[in-house]
Amino acid sequence: MPGLGEFELIERFFTRESDDPAVALGVGDDAALIDVTGRLAVAVDTLVAGTHFPASSPARSIGHRALAVNLSDLAAMGSVPRWFTLALTIPSIDERWLDEFAGGLLGLADRYSTALIGGDTTRGPLTVTVQVIGELPDRIALTRGGGRPGDDLYISGTLGDAAAAIALGSADGAAATDVSADEGLSKRFRFPEPRVELGIALRTTASAAIDVSDGLLADLGHVCEASGCGARVDLENLPLSPALIAACGDERARRHALTGGDDYELCFAAARESADAVLAAADSSSTPVTRIGRLVADEGVTCWIAGQPVPIENEGFRHF
Amino acid sequence: MPGLGEFELIERFFTRESDDPAVALGVGDDAALIDVTGRLAVAVDTLVAGTHFPASSPARSIGHRALAVNLSDLAAMGSVPRWFTLALTIPSIDERWLDEFAGGLLGLADRYSTALIGGDTTRGPLTVTVQVIGELPDRIALTRGGGRPGDDLYISGTLGDAAAAIALGSADGAAATDVSADEGLSKRFRFPEPRVELGIALRTTASAAIDVSDGLLADLGHVCEASGCGARVDLENLPLSPALIAACGDERARRHALTGGDDYELCFAAARESADAVLAAADSSSTPVTRIGRLVADEGVTCWIAGQPVPIENEGFRHF
Repeated sequence: MPGLGEFELIERFFTRESDDPAVALGVGDDAALIDVTGRLAVAVDTLVAGTHFPASSPARSIGHRALAVNLSDLAAMGSVPRWFTLALTIPSIDERWLDEFAGGLLGLADRYSTALIGGDTTRGPLTVTVQVIGELPDRIALTRGGGRPGDDLYISGTLGDAAAAIALGSADGAAATDVSADEGLSKRFRFPEPRVELGIALRTTASAAIDVSDGLLADLGHVCEASGCGARVDLENLPLSPALIAACGDERARRHALTGGDDYELCFAAARESADAVLAAADSSSTPVTRIGRLVADEGVTCWIAGQPVPIENEGFRHF
Repeated sequence: MPGLGEFELIERFFTRESDDPAVALGVGDDAALIDVTGRLAVAVDTLVAGTHFPASSPARSIGHRALAVNLSDLAAMGSVPRWFTLALTIPSIDERWLDEFAGGLLGLADRYSTALIGGDTTRGPLTVTVQVIGELPDRIALTRGGGRPGDDLYISGTLGDAAAAIALGSADGAAATDVSADEGLSKRFRFPEPRVELGIALRTTASAAIDVSDGLLADLGHVCEASGCGARVDLENLPLSPALIAACGDERARRHALTGGDDYELCFAAARESADAVLAAADSSSTPVTRIGRLVADEGVTCWIAGQPVPIENEGFRHF
């Protein structure tokens, strides 16, 4: 549809009435206006076609993931998501694609009452950048740097499913355009569930947290570096889905769990005496949580089986 | 430099010590933390190589423009810029390019004490998305929608230089990598000056404002639409630079001024009785301002010469 301007495009596909009283001015002027008091968490993540998702991915999945990976960053800070902006670069205007993309994006946004307050649409190779802004009402945030040796180490949900879907070549799943009809490992890649409620519930309980986007070993390494300690992971305790084990077998499943990103689970640490509070947070957020090891004084991340250390090559996602 | 991770990349090229007490946590965790009270203005703009700038543009110019176009949006709201995030997609790591890009970006940021608080670097076709957050201490913002028939219409600086540079094929200016050594029309394209001080000074004086990124006629049209009125532009009054007239002649210069974007001047309206206050704002911000017409009750934007309407085809930048 040549000639359709940026303004009309955003208005047509991405504008929703917001009943958020904090949004003084939404999409449509030079900037959005929001009224805030307190501490905000701000995160930005870009998905590039061919780098972060197959170009043939369903548009609904691309829209969902673009917001999900950012909500996951806020979850890792324990922040309540509130607003986001969208910078969408597309090669041409395909109304059906835009409808699906907006459906995936705004469907997830609605679930978390997160309002799209601004955007920019441009012409070029398919690239989606979302920036989210969240609130931390009591100014307390979960960072990567609060872990202490002796803290227990936990992971939410199961790991490795999304990486297996990529390895098995089923990540794009062009036929599965509807999240409700989508199933199995590839759904984990296409429609990741940010652990928003768990992150919020852990805000005053966990000592450190990160979302696993680049692989457990890589991301846990960031927690250790920021916390000035190391970590020990007991491989028997890694939570693996039955579908993953069925598709890959135990050993490959474990490797996907350790080095594959894209599951967007939360990896967090908590003092031993907070174990009950961790279970309560898991319970209140209806999110499975598994203890997978502990933080240790010696630097570096080590993996253990049956009480013996085992060498594991860290092959987390490299951005370059 | 294969293997250089996202984290190292951001740390190496884009991290600066910030002395902003409102930044509780900057680059390096899952999200940045800022402490705010009041009304914020949020804007996002993307520059795509080949669409918004020649791929051969100097990296310093690309970095400068990526922030400048966003600061210009904040200027049009009368907002004080405070923080920004960077989403940078690059095909490969070129250290010299990154150094220059960061120099252009952070050089402009430093001038406005605007802190880079977060970012994401990804691999793909060169695309730069910046999101800025500004403050409006008294909750008063300049919008597009406050204009009234009878208001005087103003433009800052001069118009058409950047469009002429593009038309003359000198916009990329690969040789000119230093803003201080750069001159002439093409400098207007490569290193646009956002009218931040003027926008802030006009916040309680102007009735409506927009920054001219898509061409005066197109952007003035947005003001008219939002304000529910029309506008009359007296073409004799359009501020044109001597360099533009020398390069293009009067008629083509005027056309560039009306339909070319990329100058990032402010177009604003103010009640007639605010004329002195407008001059004071121009003075205090050291920004030239010219009265170019007025808002009228009848819808649409018309152009006039010697008291007679003249037909002008609106050829503002089309995003698609």
